[in-house]
Amino acid sequence: MRARKLVSAILLAAFAAAVNVAPAPSQVPAPRPRHNLMPVPASLRFNAGRLPVTNAFAVAARGHADARLRAGVERAVRRLEGRTVMEFARGLAADPAAAALVVECAGPGRAVPAVDEDESYALEVTDKQAVLKAPTTVGALRGLETFLQLVEGDREGFYVPAVSIKDRPRFPWRGLLIDVARHYQPVEVIKRNLDAMAAVKMNVLHWHLTEDQGFRVESKKFPRLHQLGSDGLYFTQEQVREVIAYAAARGIRVVPEFDLPGHATAWLVGHPELGSAPGPYQIERRPGIFEPTLDPTREEVYKFLDAFFGEMAALFPDAYFHIGGDENTGKQWDRNPRIQEFMKRRGLKDNHALQTYFNQRLLKILQKHGKRMMGWDEIFQPDLPKDVVIHSWRGQTALAEAARRGYDGVLSNGYYIDLIFPASAHYLNDPLPEGSTLTPAEAAHVLGGEATMWAEWVTPETIDSRIWPRTAAIAERLWSPRETRDVEDMYRRLAVVSVRLEELGLTHERNQGMMLRRLAGGKETWPLETLAALVEPVKEYRRYQQRPQTMLSPLTGLVDAARPDSDAARRFGAHADALLSDAPRFVAGATELEAALSEWQRAAPALAALIEGSPALHEARPLAGDLSELAAAGLEALSYLTRGVAPSAGWRDRRLSSVEQAAKPKAAVEFAVAQSVKQLVVAAHEWPRLREMTAADWKAHVKQLSAPPPPRPRQH
Amino acid sequence: MRARKLVSAILLAAFAAAVNVAPAPSQVPAPRPRHNLMPVPASLRFNAGRLPVTNAFAVAARGHADARLRAGVERAVRRLEGRTVMEFARGLAADPAAAALVVECAGPGRAVPAVDEDESYALEVTDKQAVLKAPTTVGALRGLETFLQLVEGDREGFYVPAVSIKDRPRFPWRGLLIDVARHYQPVEVIKRNLDAMAAVKMNVLHWHLTEDQGFRVESKKFPRLHQLGSDGLYFTQEQVREVIAYAAARGIRVVPEFDLPGHATAWLVGHPELGSAPGPYQIERRPGIFEPTLDPTREEVYKFLDAFFGEMAALFPDAYFHIGGDENTGKQWDRNPRIQEFMKRRGLKDNHALQTYFNQRLLKILQKHGKRMMGWDEIFQPDLPKDVVIHSWRGQTALAEAARRGYDGVLSNGYYIDLIFPASAHYLNDPLPEGSTLTPAEAAHVLGGEATMWAEWVTPETIDSRIWPRTAAIAERLWSPRETRDVEDMYRRLAVVSVRLEELGLTHERNQGMMLRRLAGGKETWPLETLAALVEPVKEYRRYQQRPQTMLSPLTGLVDAARPDSDAARRFGAHADALLSDAPRFVAGATELEAALSEWQRAAPALAALIEGSPALHEARPLAGDLSELAAAGLEALSYLTRGVAPSAGWRDRRLSSVEQAAKPKAAVEFAVAQSVKQLVVAAHEWPRLREMTAADWKAHVKQLSAPPPPRPRQH
Repeated sequence: MRARKLVSAILLAAFAAAVNVAPAPSQVPAPRPRHNLMPVPASLRFNAGRLPVTNAFAVAARGHADARLRAGVERAVRRLEGRTVMEFARGLAADPAAAALVVECAGPGRAVPAVDEDESYALEVTDKQAVLKAPTTVGALRGLETFLQLVEGDREGFYVPAVSIKDRPRFPWRGLLIDVARHYQPVEVIKRNLDAMAAVKMNVLHWHLTEDQGFRVESKKFPRLHQLGSDGLYFTQEQVREVIAYAAARGIRVVPEFDLPGHATAWLVGHPELGSAPGPYQIERRPGIFEPTLDPTREEVYKFLDAFFGEMAALFPDAYFHIGGDENTGKQWDRNPRIQEFMKRRGLKDNHALQTYFNQRLLKILQKHGKRMMGWDEIFQPDLPKDVVIHSWRGQTALAEAARRGYDGVLSNGYYIDLIFPASAHYLNDPLPEGSTLTPAEAAHVLGGEATMWAEWVTPETIDSRIWPRTAAIAERLWSPRETRDVEDMYRRLAVVSVRLEELGLTHERNQGMMLRRLAGGKETWPLETLAALVEPVKEYRRYQQRPQTMLSPLTGLVDAARPDSDAARRFGAHADALLSDAPRFVAGATELEAALSEWQRAAPALAALIEGSPALHEARPLAGDLSELAAAGLEALSYLTRGVAPSAGWRDRRLSSVEQAAKPKAAVEFAVAQSVKQLVVAAHEWPRLREMTAADWKAHVKQLSAPPPPRPRQH
Repeated sequence: MRARKLVSAILLAAFAAAVNVAPAPSQVPAPRPRHNLMPVPASLRFNAGRLPVTNAFAVAARGHADARLRAGVERAVRRLEGRTVMEFARGLAADPAAAALVVECAGPGRAVPAVDEDESYALEVTDKQAVLKAPTTVGALRGLETFLQLVEGDREGFYVPAVSIKDRPRFPWRGLLIDVARHYQPVEVIKRNLDAMAAVKMNVLHWHLTEDQGFRVESKKFPRLHQLGSDGLYFTQEQVREVIAYAAARGIRVVPEFDLPGHATAWLVGHPELGSAPGPYQIERRPGIFEPTLDPTREEVYKFLDAFFGEMAALFPDAYFHIGGDENTGKQWDRNPRIQEFMKRRGLKDNHALQTYFNQRLLKILQKHGKRMMGWDEIFQPDLPKDVVIHSWRGQTALAEAARRGYDGVLSNGYYIDLIFPASAHYLNDPLPEGSTLTPAEAAHVLGGEATMWAEWVTPETIDSRIWPRTAAIAERLWSPRETRDVEDMYRRLAVVSVRLEELGLTHERNQGMMLRRLAGGKETWPLETLAALVEPVKEYRRYQQRPQTMLSPLTGLVDAARPDSDAARRFGAHADALLSDAPRFVAGATELEAALSEWQRAAPALAALIEGSPALHEARPLAGDLSELAAAGLEALSYLTRGVAPSAGWRDRRLSSVEQAAKPKAAVEFAVAQSVKQLVVAAHEWPRLREMTAADWKAHVKQLSAPPPPRPRQH
């Protein structure tokens, strides 16, 4: 569900609210024991003492220890080796009494990972030993990840702090949708993302396999589907089994999605006879919503789908099959007299009714093959059986409504990570927000959520940087207690998680340098690094409007190298908040702000020269001037504030206007620091008022003084 | 051929000479048109004008255009897209007149890539069009790489300069040995390195598949070989075929090596009955030379090898099979009475004679299966047939001797990239050095050379950084004219090549940051980055002696993150040379030296703090003090020189002694800048003498003043 038209308005409103909730440093909650756990456990108590991690580190098992657990322990120990540069014994130790970590597992859990798997565990660490207890192997795997996150180091060496943890997930469905259709992602990308999911205790890979832009799974029954619908870029059934086994080894379910009846161009390239218009069809190369739709009036279509889903049901063991069901334009139906005639005959009053008819037929096919149906909001209508799962891009209200009627639901509204919003926005988005009026029984129908990695603008080179680390914040929302909502602490832990994800092969951090070097064509990259740290890709669906490309275009530009949720901008913003909260002294944060602003000032001319000589960066030409402008405005504002001299309103207006210009997106990126610079400029002129205002009032005031935002672009 | 004992002395002498040849800036040859081609073509003339690379860029073919050529063009165009961020047409253009690049290929060349393949091409670029002509598809692929290297950018956009190139390799055998036995390297590592090889026109992957530490190829006839000899880490035959096809698509041969009769532990784990001692055998985990050896006296062994090589001959299409033949200790033979008895009976006077007997039997087996035998120097003896190829770790003299007797030979002495010597040392090492007394007919037996990536201390995470970019300098030595020897210009071009290799997925640049972040455990890495830029892993075989590990140890320490051939140290050295050549003004380079030294000074205390808190770095504790010492000594020396004040001999001796201490390896890394700092210290005291000395005399003088180097460690 790309959900272009509606989701944008809903998300923007939710995000605008969420972004402003981030507490300024002055609002930081009371200190607590700092740890690097993400997701935060349900219950956690630090005790006195620590368990040293030495060369003698070994893991033993008591009770059930199946091959999956042994392999999980082996992987954990190898990761610990990599991090500590110490060599540990291989395999399980024979004597639990002498092992640093003992795993006590009661049983294997479900043969095929399932939504009702018991993932709980308890971890007790003393200065003698760590003991991990779990009812299932999956619970033990979750606990092993917690153990790895607990490992710290100091001058004495590596250790695990003494701690008592009792943990279980808040929601049983904690997913990541990866769209491999718009841009194909090879097996190694899927595998390393499964590793990352396991590291933050996610348990569902929603594998979006078909789209207008590609049909990515091998069908032996209908080979024209993948042969003609994929440019040769598809998963063989052997690879599918490999991915499923890899996921299951990590306690992760694999829910396939076959998007129907719309989003179906790639199906029809090889099988135009299934379409609602005669064809021929070509693989779609543009982003957007397209007309090609299966013909729901022909029995041959259901015969085909019966055979196809029979084949897929044998391939994918999960109980759930996602059938999409979204964004059918209905235009092919409107234009097809035979379909119109069919609707009249059956008394189907509109396309929605026709799609419901299709869904009910499809539902029977899935049931026949032992699968439960899942689909986007659009499939929801009253006479569906209760074992259907609603996947909501519309939001918590739609989800609650379905729950009240007894339907299970999964939330993705607010988790559209392709829209480049900050982690904080996703983090505070709760499937069951405080104040929900659902009864406990109804609330139990809210199964969880899924981050959605729609893939119009990602390649294997960049996809990790769009998923991670932000998705770890979503993972925490879905696992940890509702009350875990400290944004600043989340970001502190997220930085640690991000580095640790790298040990699993994730490329979200390391590929940016490479992309910048390529853009610079072998020239010195430091000014470009300064720029890239301060800009973010434009949000929502603006990228395509500002910089149209197709699915065949190279995704190697500055916008691709830029990453969501700029750390540097957030740090700058925190220092600016600290400075303004320190009125009228204006000492806190001043040194850091001046260092940052001076660095921008120094980088700007070097950046201009680099861009001139590097044609791949020519589209970014105005950004060097913008950087210079932001630096100048910020430095002047800082100087006024720290000297206690107020500039004129004329100065303020000139600077605000130029910062506003600098804040406008160019080359489909925008300066994430612009708003903070605006605050400094306004404050320089009006600092005596600062003492009388709350932080929220102040932000509202700055916003009001700024030029109105450009009208929000319409979707096409 | 690990060649531990002998190679070290030979290499060290050669390298010591070679390193000092690097010209100081004052000795730079006359300016020439600068380009980024590597290897430099045989003939190259720049003309007036340029061919713009625009959105309309397209490639057409005239004449022969097979699937391999089309795929090669497609890959080249996609790389160009990535670099330029422009989208180009897919497939060949229909109209050559309108294409920016026209490829005229006369024919396909060899069906299986062969040593006598014609790899020549001519490339003519005008402001209208580029025309690439080649007799074979492989020649055209080589020319495509040259075309990609020619693409430049400036304020006007991307372009290719007008140029006339006629090119062919100097040597027909330009190889890279990858040892996948000591540390397994999965298919993706092999593939990306094949891409890199093709980018610098190398044409042989020497696949070192068996060793004491692993048997890495699937044998369907003798599955116990890979099943018991590999920890499950081996190439299936399907993967082998995939690699061979991938290589062939890039005009690269794949020569497999099955090391015999020594280096054979992993063979014997599954088949102890082949050994010269009863066994049982375990996969070897240590580095070194070991005793397990095939029994050359038993007919069953030859029957086994006949069946095995029959299977492998069908799998590997190349005409050459490498049988190792090196470093047999002979100890198992000495101790086996039955073998001693056999030798007596046959009149084989020593182990060398027995190995010759084995080789001759093996030769017949290979011949039976249609293969030519290749082996290390040790296999050479007078009655070998002339189609055997000698692979020389001993050096040019041994190679020339074999050539005189009519044997083909390939040089690896001087190309042992695992020994961490700088690119300059390898670059100046010539298989047919100037002054060679071979006749042209004899010289034709010198087929070329191979860089050897022995894999005791590399993993998939680090191997690229040990191979690249230095191997590109070896590639140039083997392709370009002997007279191409400008080290400074080589390094300038190597920096560009290095970045361009990244577009092929190579990780030699990008993984260092990740490894440093892991070592720092999520803390700020900048002081560690400063350190890592200045140190190199210890050279030759000293790593194991200073920091023993096994094949199962994590290779994630500082020594693994450190890279050979420090750019920062070379730049520092160039600035120091410039400064000292500028006596008595001491202006040239002073700013850069002071900036660098101040950066070290600033980093040292932060580094000390970071190391204290990061146990994985504890082994590097002394390096923070060393960095501080080098900075202090350098800054003081610089201050004396620029102020024209000479310090006392006492100051010089104290500083020299402390720099000497700092220069000593710790944690198996060493400061590559120490020698340059020494020069500054000596110069500060003696600068009036500088004007009277040549650069070489000066360097000798500094060396003499330094404490004697520590005794070279003995091999075990």
